[in-house]
This record gives sequence, C-alpha cells and structure tokens, in this order.
Amino acid sequence: MKQIRVGLLGFGTVGAGMVKILTKNREVIESRLGASLELKWIADIDLETDRGVSVDKRIMTTDALMVINDPDVDIVVELIGGYEPAKSFVLEAIENGKQVVTANKALLARHGNEIFSAASQKGAEVGFEASVGGGIPLIRSIKEGLVANRIQGFFGILNGTANYILTKMTNEGSPFSDVLKEAQALGYAEADPTFDIEGIDTAHKLTILLSIAYGVPIDFETVYTEGISKITPLDIKFIKEFGYSIKLLAISKDDGKSIEARVHPTLIPEDTLLANVNEAYNALYVKGDAVGNVMLFGPGAGMMPTGSAVVSDLVDIGRNLLSGAIGRVPSVGYQPSYVKPRRVRSIEELDAEYYFRFSAIDKPGVLSKISGILGEHQISIKSVHQKGRDLMGAVPIVMITHEAKEAAVKKALSDIDKLDIVQDKTILIRIEDWR
Amino acid sequence: MKQIRVGLLGFGTVGAGMVKILTKNREVIESRLGASLELKWIADIDLETDRGVSVDKRIMTTDALMVINDPDVDIVVELIGGYEPAKSFVLEAIENGKQVVTANKALLARHGNEIFSAASQKGAEVGFEASVGGGIPLIRSIKEGLVANRIQGFFGILNGTANYILTKMTNEGSPFSDVLKEAQALGYAEADPTFDIEGIDTAHKLTILLSIAYGVPIDFETVYTEGISKITPLDIKFIKEFGYSIKLLAISKDDGKSIEARVHPTLIPEDTLLANVNEAYNALYVKGDAVGNVMLFGPGAGMMPTGSAVVSDLVDIGRNLLSGAIGRVPSVGYQPSYVKPRRVRSIEELDAEYYFRFSAIDKPGVLSKISGILGEHQISIKSVHQKGRDLMGAVPIVMITHEAKEAAVKKALSDIDKLDIVQDKTILIRIEDWR
Repeated sequence: MKQIRVGLLGFGTVGAGMVKILTKNREVIESRLGASLELKWIADIDLETDRGVSVDKRIMTTDALMVINDPDVDIVVELIGGYEPAKSFVLEAIENGKQVVTANKALLARHGNEIFSAASQKGAEVGFEASVGGGIPLIRSIKEGLVANRIQGFFGILNGTANYILTKMTNEGSPFSDVLKEAQALGYAEADPTFDIEGIDTAHKLTILLSIAYGVPIDFETVYTEGISKITPLDIKFIKEFGYSIKLLAISKDDGKSIEARVHPTLIPEDTLLANVNEAYNALYVKGDAVGNVMLFGPGAGMMPTGSAVVSDLVDIGRNLLSGAIGRVPSVGYQPSYVKPRRVRSIEELDAEYYFRFSAIDKPGVLSKISGILGEHQISIKSVHQKGRDLMGAVPIVMITHEAKEAAVKKALSDIDKLDIVQDKTILIRIEDWR
Repeated sequence: MKQIRVGLLGFGTVGAGMVKILTKNREVIESRLGASLELKWIADIDLETDRGVSVDKRIMTTDALMVINDPDVDIVVELIGGYEPAKSFVLEAIENGKQVVTANKALLARHGNEIFSAASQKGAEVGFEASVGGGIPLIRSIKEGLVANRIQGFFGILNGTANYILTKMTNEGSPFSDVLKEAQALGYAEADPTFDIEGIDTAHKLTILLSIAYGVPIDFETVYTEGISKITPLDIKFIKEFGYSIKLLAISKDDGKSIEARVHPTLIPEDTLLANVNEAYNALYVKGDAVGNVMLFGPGAGMMPTGSAVVSDLVDIGRNLLSGAIGRVPSVGYQPSYVKPRRVRSIEELDAEYYFRFSAIDKPGVLSKISGILGEHQISIKSVHQKGRDLMGAVPIVMITHEAKEAAVKKALSDIDKLDIVQDKTILIRIEDWR
C-alpha cells in the first residue's frame, strides 16, 4: 500500500487529536484513501508532557527544521499556533516542496496572502479546514459544495468560548466575570481569554471566510470587531423580554458593490435555529444566490473535532498526491489571478435595527427628551420599555429601533449621553434578522 | 480558456436550474474553476415547453443518444429521473468514456452498484451530490469532510414535501388529506405523492447515505420504510402535549456489529434543533467517532438549490479533468475493494421509546388491562394520559414508554388490539433522542 508521509509540528491538544485519529481510524482512512497516512515525525519543544496518546519515541524530535527538510515528508502539519515560528516553518516547508496543513487562523488572518502566494508559486497546497469551525466542514463546503453560487453573505457563531459564556449568562443570569472564571476552571476558556471574548478569534475566522466566499485577498484590518465583555445580566434579561437571544456573530454581506465584515454581540430572534445553538457549539449560515440559506452546525473546537478536520485535509491532499493533482483547488477556491480586493464598508455605513439601554434619572419628560433626539437623527422607535426604580436613582430605559444608519445612531447616542438626565454611557447592541 | 463540455439529458425543473446557474454565474464559476463549463447539448423529448430560461435553439435536441455519443461531450448530466431510460443512458455514457452527474436518487438506490461498478471499471466519475438533500453539500461533507471518522450514524429530514405537510398539520391542526391537497395546489407535492408521503423517497436517499457512510453496497430492500399518511391531528395534539415534535426521519446507526436503517414518522424533543427544521427544509445530523455530531441544514429540493448541487459536481469533475485526476475520490468514498455488505438489523430488533394511542371503551379497569399486557411483555410506561370522552364511545389513552424491544411491542399491541375494550388498531410512533 502506498504511503503518504506526514510531519507534525506542535504536539498540543489538536496535534494529539490528529495522532489519535491516525492510529485509531487507520483502517477506515486507508479503505477510503487507498493509501496509508504515516506519521514520520512529531516535533515539539516539549517532549516530556504526556499527551494521552501512545507514540513511538523514535519519531519525536525537538528539531522542527529537520522535519521540514526531511525529503521523505510529503505533508507538514503546523499545529504550533501563533505567528512565529509557525509562519517561518510554513513558508520553509512550502519552499522545500512540501504540502502544508494548518489549523492556525491567527496566522492565516495576518499572513494568509503571503502563504497562499508562496504555495501558488511552488504549486503546493495549503489545507486549512481546521482553522474555522473546528470539526465542521465549513471551508470545504464553501469552496467546493457551494462553488456554483455567488456567495451573498454568511453569518454565524465561530467561537465556542464566547458562545458558552453567553449561554451560561442567559441560562443562569450570572455576570460575565463569574461565568468567565467558571469557563476557565472547566477548560472552556484560556488563561488569557482576550482573543475569544473580545471577538478577535471570530474576526480571524471571518477574515478567512471572506477570502473563500468572495475571492478577496485576506485583510484582517478591515473587519469591525467588538467583544462580549461589556454584556450585563440586565441586558440579557431585557433581551429575553423582547424575544431575542444574544450571540457573538461573524456577519458578512455582499451587495454586489461592497462587502460588510463585522464581529459583535448581536440580537437574533429567539425562535431561529441559530438562537438555539448553545454551549460551545458553532454554526454558520451561508447564503448563495442559487442555493439560498445553508447552515452547518457542530463542535467548533476541541482535540478530536479539530483533529478530524486536520485529517480530512491530509486525506484530501493525499488523494491529490496519489493522482498527481496537487493544486486542483486553489487555496481560497478562486484562481489566484481572479483574487481582487473589494471595498469593505465601515461600521458607520451599517443599516440595522438596534437595542439601546439608557440609564436615565427617573424624572417626567426623560423619554420624550431621548426620543426627541433620536427623531432628529431619523431613528424611529419600534418598541420601548421603562423599567423599575432600583438603579440608584437611574432607571433603565430599553428600546428596539427600526432600521437606522449606524452613523446617525452614534451621533444621536453621543448627544443623548451628554444630557444631564443620562447617567451612564448608553448600551448599544445590533440586531440581525435574516429570515 | 479551457472548456469542459456538458451534455444535459432532461430539461425539467432541475435541468432549467442548472442551465440558469451556468448562464448567470458563468463568471464566478470560471474564476474558481479556471475553465468554462460549456453547455453543448440539451436533450429532452419536449422541446416546446418554456422553461423560463433562454437557450440557443441549436443546442436543443430530442436525441439523447446523439448527446451520449458526441465525442466532444466531457460530462453527461442525467436529470430525466426514474429508472428507464435514465439507467441505460447513464451506463452508455460511462461506456463511452464520459463522466456522469445525476440527481436521480431512485435510480441510484436501485441500480447504484451496477452504475458505480461500471464507472470504476471505466475509470469514470459519477457525481450525485444533488441526489440527497438538494442544495446542501451532504454527500461531499460525508465523503470528504468527515473522511477521518468512523461514521456511527446519521439521522435527519430528507424529504421537503413530508416535512412541509407535518409542519402545516402541527401549526394548523388540519388533517393529513387537507394539507396534502393544499401542498399539491402550491406545488409542494406532486400529483402522485406516494414516494414523498410514504417515505420511499427518504428511503432512497437513506440507501445512498448508508453506502457513503459505511462503505456498504447499495441495497434499498434492507431499509424499513413507513410513511406519514396515517398521522392524525389527534396524535399531533397529544405529541405536542408530551413535549415532542413529529418528523419523518431517516435514521441509521452502526454499533460496530450491524447497521440500523429505517424511515418512519418519529417523535423528537421539541427543544432540539431538528425539531425546529420546518416547512420544506431538510437537515441531517451525522455522528462521527472523532467529530461528534455535525448537522447540515438547507433547502432539500427546488430548481436552483438542486441546480447548485449539480453544478458543484460539474466543477468537481471539471477540476479532475483539468488535472488528470479522474477517479481521485471513489464513487461512494471507499475504494471499491473495501466495499463490503454488513448485516442490517430488522425493525423487530429495534430498542426505542414509543408513543402509543389506544382507542378504548370508556370503562373502569381499561388502563389496568392494557398496562398489564404491556408489563407482561417487559414494556414499562414512562407517562400516560387518558383523554376526553368525545370519540363515539371510545376514549384515546396515550402513553410514552421507556425503552423497549420492537418485537415485544408488536406482540403486546397485537394482544391489546384483540381486547373487546379496544376499538381501533393502536397507533405506534417511535421516539428518538440523540442528545
């Protein structure tokens, strides 16, 4: 039986998952591929930690460069994470004529163009199914399954940690900081959770999806990013009363002229499928001009799910190696000569419905003043509630608007927040309803 | 620019969708494929009907064999439907060295082995993404996206017509026959709806999925099939009271020894994602040993969604033609030498929870008699309600059981239905909860 030889860089959680799958499912993978995936090397700076998977000590090394330079290695798998040395290793592997598989969304979101262009010049492949949506075959579905479509947009939950926290906050009414601590204790959130809770990880993934959806170069800087750390139990309570769920969403739309690309906490109607995607699960809606809305759901992270995506890339590239078809699908699904930048709209250009929570002194005429300023900025109110009297002299006034321009909203809130009767900065959460 | 030349057999709804996409999305398809998909011929016995898409009259023909024999045609698309002449055309196209794309689930469920084996011998490809789940990239996701996994099972909604009818019955409380007539008037159900409402279409699709999930030959006869035509508004009412939704599901599980393969109306907890897949939408859960549960959702039928799946196969095969890699993925995802039959369990071997509705004479001791017989057959009751008195002397007694053996259930119901106090045949609906 023919062999595809794999060199792994980075023996962390996902690396261990990949190794486990290659061992446990060797037979079924061979029966599909018609060849075997042989793990030739595992490189890691730490050879001591027990990864919970038995490995022949002789294939373990601390020398990643040796792996990249081994002429016997067909595919280099980069699971180190971060920017360096991951980037140098990937570029050197490509330079050496290797195929590459990576789960590194941060790397691709920052340096994807350089990596894909190096791969294209060398006629090499870069598989990155594991970089977005963990075990869900999202990348493949957009690049190949929906290839007949002009992608009109996509939106979804791409970070399990943030979704876990929002789910707990919704179910238990606990404050963000408590739930975060609990998530960290359970291993659902990292010691430094910044990337997950501030939307940066979601924005990395959105950046990659933009490229395969629309054939644009990767440009992380164009994505508007806002996290969930300012969401309060008070807002969650009101959100529920209005019939919404709150999710940290990646949202993009292509109106044919320009592209929208944003990550922020979002209210969605509670009776939609996406509103019922809870805990650490991910889900993405993709809208194609021919197919309509397709949704994919599953585990967006974790050792075995992400390992499953890594191995799917190994098999895919393995099939191409066996049939002499390396490069049959371009990295982002578009031929490199067709990859062209498009204008990305700023968040100020957004048209959306909004949820506002004002903290106002409890005096007659307050609502009239606030709604007056909104009216001056052409923002009309769909629904409003004035709540209780237990907030140290200030009462929350919550409202849902009709569709309005974000630029106008920002100006109106700035004016409102300057009023004497308004005590705290007004909370703004965007609403999305794609049905 | 290189050309991939396509000959279409069957210019019905899906055929028109395919042609529309090839025209409308020519540019985006070319930018991905790096070649153009050229429609060389459209063959249909009816050249007169307006399909709502403008076509050069010179490529229209009634002569399907001419298309199959044209040496310029690279890929033959069979969208005729049914068994003959579709089967002969497909086999002859393969014999002539063409690649084939088909949306014909009935054909594959009956003659898939013969077609795939002919293709394998000729080194040809048969694309059938459009045969299951309409525009949802289900086939590709199982064959390629989840390739690292031992598939442990799958279950889902694969027929939009049946789901539409059950959704309407649930929302409106109307009887099956009324909703069917309404669905026919709206074009959601065909004049002869047998395949859709009796579960046969779903069973065709399940048969195809069994093959790609487990690497077994196609064998339609092993699938247990039961439709939705006996579901009554009364049952729907009780089902809701118990906290369930009713769906026509395709269900399969692999316990490592044998396989379960069944299609029947099924109760699922109302707070699950699948319970909220309504109208004509399809959705499939696939459980892989590494990835866990992945779910795909989208439009399971229709001109443009199904056309989208057909064109995705054209691009996929086109890429293989361009890179000389025809046959890089075997038809069912497994190398032919590994495709082996497995034992499929009969419905009598099933362990499940059940919903029963008894029609019993309203006399004291009735429930005791019924539950006594159930107890004799080791069937224990989880929940029971005795309802109203408005059924012409008989009252409905509805219950949910704990897990029981289907063989025992059948015996118990046969004994119960012989009782003088029982007026009608007892209604049995299986329950499924995969959470």
